Amino acid sequence: MKDFVYSTPTKVYFGRGAQLKIGEAIKETSVSKIMLQYGKGSIKKSGLYQQVVNAIKAEGIEIVEMGGVEPNPKLSFVRKAIKLAKDTGVELILAVGGGSVIDSCKFTAIGATTDVDVWKFVTGEETPKSALPVGCVLTISAAGSEMSSSAVITNEELNVKKGLTTEFNRCAFAICNPELTFTLPEYQTACGVVDILSHTMERYFTVCPDTPLTDSIAESIMKNVVSAGKKAIEEPNNYDARATLMWASSLSHNGLTGAGRENYLVVHQIEHALSGEFDHVTHGAGLALLFPAWAKYVYDKNLPRFVSFAKNVWGATGKTNREIALNGINAMQEFFKALKMPSSLIDVGVTEKDFLKIANNCTRNGARTIKSYVNLNNEDIISILHLCK
Amino acid sequence: MKDFVYSTPTKVYFGRGAQLKIGEAIKETSVSKIMLQYGKGSIKKSGLYQQVVNAIKAEGIEIVEMGGVEPNPKLSFVRKAIKLAKDTGVELILAVGGGSVIDSCKFTAIGATTDVDVWKFVTGEETPKSALPVGCVLTISAAGSEMSSSAVITNEELNVKKGLTTEFNRCAFAICNPELTFTLPEYQTACGVVDILSHTMERYFTVCPDTPLTDSIAESIMKNVVSAGKKAIEEPNNYDARATLMWASSLSHNGLTGAGRENYLVVHQIEHALSGEFDHVTHGAGLALLFPAWAKYVYDKNLPRFVSFAKNVWGATGKTNREIALNGINAMQEFFKALKMPSSLIDVGVTEKDFLKIANNCTRNGARTIKSYVNLNNEDIISILHLCK
Repeated sequence: MKDFVYSTPTKVYFGRGAQLKIGEAIKETSVSKIMLQYGKGSIKKSGLYQQVVNAIKAEGIEIVEMGGVEPNPKLSFVRKAIKLAKDTGVELILAVGGGSVIDSCKFTAIGATTDVDVWKFVTGEETPKSALPVGCVLTISAAGSEMSSSAVITNEELNVKKGLTTEFNRCAFAICNPELTFTLPEYQTACGVVDILSHTMERYFTVCPDTPLTDSIAESIMKNVVSAGKKAIEEPNNYDARATLMWASSLSHNGLTGAGRENYLVVHQIEHALSGEFDHVTHGAGLALLFPAWAKYVYDKNLPRFVSFAKNVWGATGKTNREIALNGINAMQEFFKALKMPSSLIDVGVTEKDFLKIANNCTRNGARTIKSYVNLNNEDIISILHLCK
Repeated sequence: MKDFVYSTPTKVYFGRGAQLKIGEAIKETSVSKIMLQYGKGSIKKSGLYQQVVNAIKAEGIEIVEMGGVEPNPKLSFVRKAIKLAKDTGVELILAVGGGSVIDSCKFTAIGATTDVDVWKFVTGEETPKSALPVGCVLTISAAGSEMSSSAVITNEELNVKKGLTTEFNRCAFAICNPELTFTLPEYQTACGVVDILSHTMERYFTVCPDTPLTDSIAESIMKNVVSAGKKAIEEPNNYDARATLMWASSLSHNGLTGAGRENYLVVHQIEHALSGEFDHVTHGAGLALLFPAWAKYVYDKNLPRFVSFAKNVWGATGKTNREIALNGINAMQEFFKALKMPSSLIDVGVTEKDFLKIANNCTRNGARTIKSYVNLNNEDIISILHLCK
């Protein structure tokens, strides 16, 4: 087991009607003026916007609004939000939405306390030293951003989508009401399921022996995400299935599934390159394409781990360990198909001629390899993309 | 799934040599004067005391010492510590030790910020409203106090041992180095294993359907505690076994295994009455006696849950569900025997004539029942004690 630091300061209010606790949650942070960010207005149609605004105003807290966060949140939007945050002197950034809105808020919160342009934190030229607190009312179980130390942003000028990991990205609180996800389109639910599963798989497949407790918890999460994912698609209003997904979303990415292990998120890096170049590709759909392909490309370098995955998560069998491992990967792929995820890059309009561009985006034109137990260079990434054709 | 609030603000520094990070950890809390509490001096023999003191002083932080915390920490000691904390104006209470030392520090931290006598918080006459921060360097995997919201104290005048649960009991940081547990006496290791397992079992056996993720994580923890517990007894210097126990200690009692479930800790309440009356009974040993007896008394009122426990934790089989459930309970009892825990109350000097006194201690002379899915009155508790003879 590797040494680790475990820090999950986010206070989670989980359950039915939890959004009504937003006033109380903000009040605990002792702020009196907040910025509210949200997406393209679905929260206004659902009535959530009004519920949240009423609950906040009831506590005498002032709101500065900044709606219109796009999926794969954009640097230009964040820069505007940072300026507004500084101009108005808000003390907390509140996300009402999913991973994109939360990530937009995380970057805003960091940028609001400094004169450094936030893109410099993403490139590594500068290191964040402070941030305003961020809170969220979660509306989709997917990214795990509500408890994670990660945030992802797209620089539209460069077509680059990249993540920033820092403890300043931890939300102060997260309001998680599974009921809010009942009305999600099936496709969004399915993309979320893939994302949750991927966050656990990314840590599970690193090479790191002697973490049986973390491994077993990861398998518990994966099994439950698979069964609750199927159930939530069949019965969108099934509270317990939705609740399992929402809680798994947080646990998959808050550090628990990586405790004592390497934390590389290698497939995520390739997916960020893919959806950085092709903005219409939903993150979960990209992961559903890439994960089985990556697994087929590397499984034999870590066979015992893929055998455990096959047996303990999918109940796969076979005559040899290679067969068991491949049956496990196939079971994952079949699950993604059952979720109506795209099964080929062609389905999302990406063809062979784009592969080098995606690989270069990922490796900064070949200047680096993607670190994992099998390091990936341009050639490897292109081979993996060929397996997604 | 029940609604819940999940709050685990404790920053955990986990791994080899972690105690050397104590200066850094304290510095992050921005304090300059601390109280250091420890037990009866074993940390001086091992050299840990000097390592910790050196690391703290290297950061220019002043130390006020209060050694001599007893197992089952005593109210009189805590009252003295509170007075010293107030007189010296310390800003953080640091525990170097196990659950008893940490709990003593938690009560000191609460008492140091108020004129209310801390016993009134335990009886419920008053509610804590503030506390100094508490940190710890953990030396035994057992109580889970390093991440829990609980603390237990013994009022020697009344022979009453009782817990206090409050969010003010959450440690600001916990330094967890499994190597520090290599030299524990076998009996202490074993008592710790029982305590860890019990914290998960207490939540697992409440009646609360539709928490498959929490249940599966609980089963993962229990299975791993059993296997790592056996390994740590066989090979006291096995780092990974010790690390599994230490991490399981924190996860068993930080809220994870109770997420969405009832949290009663019914067997703990009986054990506190037992060791409240008989101070020489180690908490883990008391639990090892009581848990199988309690389980046999109530299992048929929650048969499916005991069947899952038997199958998924112990691999038990049988012809009927009752037989499977009982085989699971017997497997737990055999495990405790293999850990050389006492198998009868007589082994710890408690006889039938003491049963009413223990029951009365637990129920405040019959004024309350112990709440669970089978509420327990004096008669029930005496019946359970008879099963431990």
